[in-house]
Amino acid sequence: MYELGVVYRNIVRADRDTADALASLGSATVHEAMGRVGLMNTYMRPIFAGQQVSGTAVTVLLHPGDNWMLHVAAEQIQPGDIVVAAVTSPNTDGFFGDLLASSFKARGARALVIDAGVRDVKTLTEMPFPVWSKAISSKGTVKATLGSVNIPVVCADALVHPGDVIVADDDGVVCVPAALAPKTLAAAKAREANEGEKRAKLASGVLGLDMYKMREPLEKAGLRYID
Amino acid sequence: MYELGVVYRNIVRADRDTADALASLGSATVHEAMGRVGLMNTYMRPIFAGQQVSGTAVTVLLHPGDNWMLHVAAEQIQPGDIVVAAVTSPNTDGFFGDLLASSFKARGARALVIDAGVRDVKTLTEMPFPVWSKAISSKGTVKATLGSVNIPVVCADALVHPGDVIVADDDGVVCVPAALAPKTLAAAKAREANEGEKRAKLASGVLGLDMYKMREPLEKAGLRYID
Amino acid sequence: MYELGVVYRNIVRADRDTADALASLGSATVHEAMGRVGLMNTYMRPIFAGQQVSGTAVTVLLHPGDNWMLHVAAEQIQPGDIVVAAVTSPNTDGFFGDLLASSFKARGARALVIDAGVRDVKTLTEMPFPVWSKAISSKGTVKATLGSVNIPVVCADALVHPGDVIVADDDGVVCVPAALAPKTLAAAKAREANEGEKRAKLASGVLGLDMYKMREPLEKAGLRYID
Amino acid sequence: MYELGVVYRNIVRADRDTADALASLGSATVHEAMGRVGLMNTYMRPIFAGQQVSGTAVTVLLHPGDNWMLHVAAEQIQPGDIVVAAVTSPNTDGFFGDLLASSFKARGARALVIDAGVRDVKTLTEMPFPVWSKAISSKGTVKATLGSVNIPVVCADALVHPGDVIVADDDGVVCVPAALAPKTLAAAKAREANEGEKRAKLASGVLGLDMYKMREPLEKAGLRYID
Amino acid sequence: MYELGVVYRNIVRADRDTADALASLGSATVHEAMGRVGLMNTYMRPIFAGQQVSGTAVTVLLHPGDNWMLHVAAEQIQPGDIVVAAVTSPNTDGFFGDLLASSFKARGARALVIDAGVRDVKTLTEMPFPVWSKAISSKGTVKATLGSVNIPVVCADALVHPGDVIVADDDGVVCVPAALAPKTLAAAKAREANEGEKRAKLASGVLGLDMYKMREPLEKAGLRYID
Amino acid sequence: MYELGVVYRNIVRADRDTADALASLGSATVHEAMGRVGLMNTYMRPIFAGQQVSGTAVTVLLHPGDNWMLHVAAEQIQPGDIVVAAVTSPNTDGFFGDLLASSFKARGARALVIDAGVRDVKTLTEMPFPVWSKAISSKGTVKATLGSVNIPVVCADALVHPGDVIVADDDGVVCVPAALAPKTLAAAKAREANEGEKRAKLASGVLGLDMYKMREPLEKAGLRYID
Repeated sequence: MYELGVVYRNIVRADRDTADALASLGSATVHEAMGRVGLMNTYMRPIFAGQQVSGTAVTVLLHPGDNWMLHVAAEQIQPGDIVVAAVTSPNTDGFFGDLLASSFKARGARALVIDAGVRDVKTLTEMPFPVWSKAISSKGTVKATLGSVNIPVVCADALVHPGDVIVADDDGVVCVPAALAPKTLAAAKAREANEGEKRAKLASGVLGLDMYKMREPLEKAGLRYID
Repeated sequence: MYELGVVYRNIVRADRDTADALASLGSATVHEAMGRVGLMNTYMRPIFAGQQVSGTAVTVLLHPGDNWMLHVAAEQIQPGDIVVAAVTSPNTDGFFGDLLASSFKARGARALVIDAGVRDVKTLTEMPFPVWSKAISSKGTVKATLGSVNIPVVCADALVHPGDVIVADDDGVVCVPAALAPKTLAAAKAREANEGEKRAKLASGVLGLDMYKMREPLEKAGLRYID
Repeated sequence: MYELGVVYRNIVRADRDTADALASLGSATVHEAMGRVGLMNTYMRPIFAGQQVSGTAVTVLLHPGDNWMLHVAAEQIQPGDIVVAAVTSPNTDGFFGDLLASSFKARGARALVIDAGVRDVKTLTEMPFPVWSKAISSKGTVKATLGSVNIPVVCADALVHPGDVIVADDDGVVCVPAALAPKTLAAAKAREANEGEKRAKLASGVLGLDMYKMREPLEKAGLRYID
Repeated sequence: MYELGVVYRNIVRADRDTADALASLGSATVHEAMGRVGLMNTYMRPIFAGQQVSGTAVTVLLHPGDNWMLHVAAEQIQPGDIVVAAVTSPNTDGFFGDLLASSFKARGARALVIDAGVRDVKTLTEMPFPVWSKAISSKGTVKATLGSVNIPVVCADALVHPGDVIVADDDGVVCVPAALAPKTLAAAKAREANEGEKRAKLASGVLGLDMYKMREPLEKAGLRYID
Repeated sequence: MYELGVVYRNIVRADRDTADALASLGSATVHEAMGRVGLMNTYMRPIFAGQQVSGTAVTVLLHPGDNWMLHVAAEQIQPGDIVVAAVTSPNTDGFFGDLLASSFKARGARALVIDAGVRDVKTLTEMPFPVWSKAISSKGTVKATLGSVNIPVVCADALVHPGDVIVADDDGVVCVPAALAPKTLAAAKAREANEGEKRAKLASGVLGLDMYKMREPLEKAGLRYID
Repeated sequence: MYELGVVYRNIVRADRDTADALASLGSATVHEAMGRVGLMNTYMRPIFAGQQVSGTAVTVLLHPGDNWMLHVAAEQIQPGDIVVAAVTSPNTDGFFGDLLASSFKARGARALVIDAGVRDVKTLTEMPFPVWSKAISSKGTVKATLGSVNIPVVCADALVHPGDVIVADDDGVVCVPAALAPKTLAAAKAREANEGEKRAKLASGVLGLDMYKMREPLEKAGLRYID
């Protein structure tokens, strides 16, 4: 967060199998498995619906209106990575479009998560190249000032270290620190294993009040029913 | 709005046939029929497009980050209801997901209108279970503090009493007080009856200036044409 | 911007062929061709995706909650026009719906760009009648106060003169002054001509760092690589 | 909320002594005494600091950009009233300035609470006439469309009935329903009576952890201290 | 708005006496005198209260996060000018602080109006150097990309040509086109001349309803009084 | 950021003299000395003007609408600390008022920086106890769910570790990592040493264009002067 003008080339990525396995669990289950932390702000939205990805973070720190470092970042991408781009102050310009997407995809990137704007949404949707962003904007950017690649960044309220696992879907984006990924995967799977049965019960008309045994604690808390 | 920790079990719902008939008229026509009042704020958006529903309100007052009362509300749902959830201060957490949706649906709820966030958007879309919300968020909630069920609430700028009719579509959400529902239905139908003819005229090239006889009032107001 | 209660009937529209040819180039390429200016704010979004239009501007200045002038504007529309509506202060009401859309379409309008809200989104999508707006809202408006038609307006941060070319797509909305349209078209075409080759190179794995010869300027700027 | 074009002349105001006594307790203590409800949104801010008022509500429903009803409301003001103005959709225009303030003050109004903008801030500060508003704006308004006076309104998320007690200070604005005012006053006084002693203890270095006996519940909840 | 990299040195400033005379009338009266147009967005706020200025505009177009052109603009300032700075896309960085303020003041500038952020607020207040801005921010900027000086700009929704008159006070900021300045001054003075008498009447208890003869039009519009 | 329900008691605070010395340099100079990083979002504002503080961070992670952990944090405060409070999702409730301020002050805290709301602003101003917050709100909070004390937190876009130095004034809030504090202090002092001379030059009429030798790079970049 505090070094400008540097590119770290050798980052330690989270275990590939673990990173890959988190996608299907989804951002909601994964962040619950971490203890309800690690989420980006809800203003981060997918530019098209229905994508569900996970991957290891290559991080970028940009300046407002300047996308130079995204080109630098492209070279650092390895297959299975997701680029996570933060900006030093709020900005909605279109830092990324179909040309950079072609490049990122060729390098093996699975998605971009950017706390700013992107453009060429139609082409990105057709490719498809998934993007979660704060804005959609035609506004072009300059290439004038150095930021950094693969330093820790704060992206949309979440701290992301290079190599962390990013899980993104229609519900949002969560960052899982590399060291916590295996434990989180296990906890998320356990959590999900229970959900099918619960869903069936609730769908059959059983109330959460009974299934979760909430009646007693509600009564203790003082809930009154009035006819 | 002023009682916490209570659940009203016996609410007077608007007449079912009236409530059902309002869906097809749509939120714009219905709010016009009421005199241009009763609308929720435009930040309330459907989580997926193309739904058009009406139903009777079961209301819930929640605390930020705490969805306990949604479980309590589930038991109060009757077929044809729409759950309307307000929060005591602005909050975007994901109070509602596929499990609660399964439960609400099993009880006969037609939709959720919530001045906060929801998650599991993909599954809700597949079910489909229509939701109008302020945000989409993976963020989970706790179950710690009592709110209330079936008290009057202010949801996204609209006052909603339990039993009122809610009409929601791609244009927004409107609340029709139960007592005004029959009159509103009649007025909305009358309004709609005229629209077909008007639309045909306008589509044929007749100007609203002439159809609505606006030229004289515009001239009186001082409008000048400059060649 | 400074005359209220006037309608200019004889405006000079940008050359039709030029105006038409800009659509396929898209808002991002066109604004780049102008030197990265002329864009509206990113809060202007299409009410449905996938539309890509251009046309000549008929401008309208409205008051908050009052759509009277849209009816006056309808008469000034010629085939190939796009109506651009500004409001004298921020407002999200639904100034425009399926009736006005029928009328605008009958007059030959291609789209509406409005710094406010619209309604009847479902019908507008089916027609289809493309709209870029700040909001979607059921809220109806009154017809009480005079604005103007075909004066210069500031719409969502962009200055638009009547007759200017508007280019709008999923990425946003750009205004090209009529006098700059031919030059902009030429520059945009030149720009696009290069893009296919660039895209192919990047898709094959060539890095932007090399294709754009950025390594030297980055080094000069002091970029350090750390292993 | 649902009647337009009406003025209720005979409203039942909360007991004057009770209404007056709530001012010194402040909005925070009063809303706590009500069970943490009744507050307006935090975007409502005083136009100058240091005012602390309470009074009985005269309510007004306005349309965006139209302040006609504030003139109608002036006649309904009695000494000790606070005018509470809502708008049918979000608007920041300057509905109120020094002329209306002179009139309101002459009628005995203590303050204005308006979910919109005001102007002549310098003069209002000098008078002084306290105002809580969403915005400050030079923008003038028209007088064209009927709203209502002394109907229930939703103002900045709070439901206000004519005659309710409004308490406003630097922390915000709270509405106390007339029927709950005596009970709320008693509860607020009781609450305040304890605060002096508590403040002294805390100022002397006693911890809230001990004074409120939180250590045991924190331990039960699982809090772990790590050295 | 469409030329980048240029500085116009010889601009036609509005008549000095006219420009100076508008300050004391204030932004609200001046914009009313123009027909209720020309105002900047209400997010433009003075960084300290109580200033009331007018002057002729020197305009600047900046890029997000880049204040290079403010230094270029300094040279173009003449005594009695107000610098008006727009940015090509929304940005809140601190483009301006005490050093530039010292320079601007030395050149004779009366104020800065900037659709972005400023810093060193404490020193600017002490100087005093009045500023109206969208934000206050410590964030520094780079000097890398050319914008322009003395081209027309859109600043916070208002179109400003170099040489136009800017009037700014606690209520907001208004731009008066140079050509309209004399007429606007006359209209504003006329408007103000009436206000003293009106204020006295209203302060004595005369109602606006009577003073403005509103009772008849209200009745015609259908207003009903209910006892 | 990832541990809930823990309190770290033994944190390594930045060197006291260094931490103390940063206050007078101000947030703008300090963040420049760090390379233009470390700033909180501009929505963080002082609740009263004119304060300029620095101190070592005691961090707190809160849940929306729940201030329990602030009481736990109080015990961890040492003289010279500044409490930095983050929330797991956006919330504006009034987490902190005069009682907690009395306690924090008694423990030696110099200020609170909270990404949420506070209340009792009048009393806090009189004490004075400086606070930088996102909102002012009367809204009370519950004490129901565990957060953490002295873990790393993201507060208003800035990463803060316990023991880091916080510098806050009217321009904003910056976080200096403990390890970088000495270097930052030296750089900030060097920076400030130059400013006096620069300010004098600029105040005497010397242009930044000349003082910073910008004319040549501007010409190289292509700036054109037009008479």
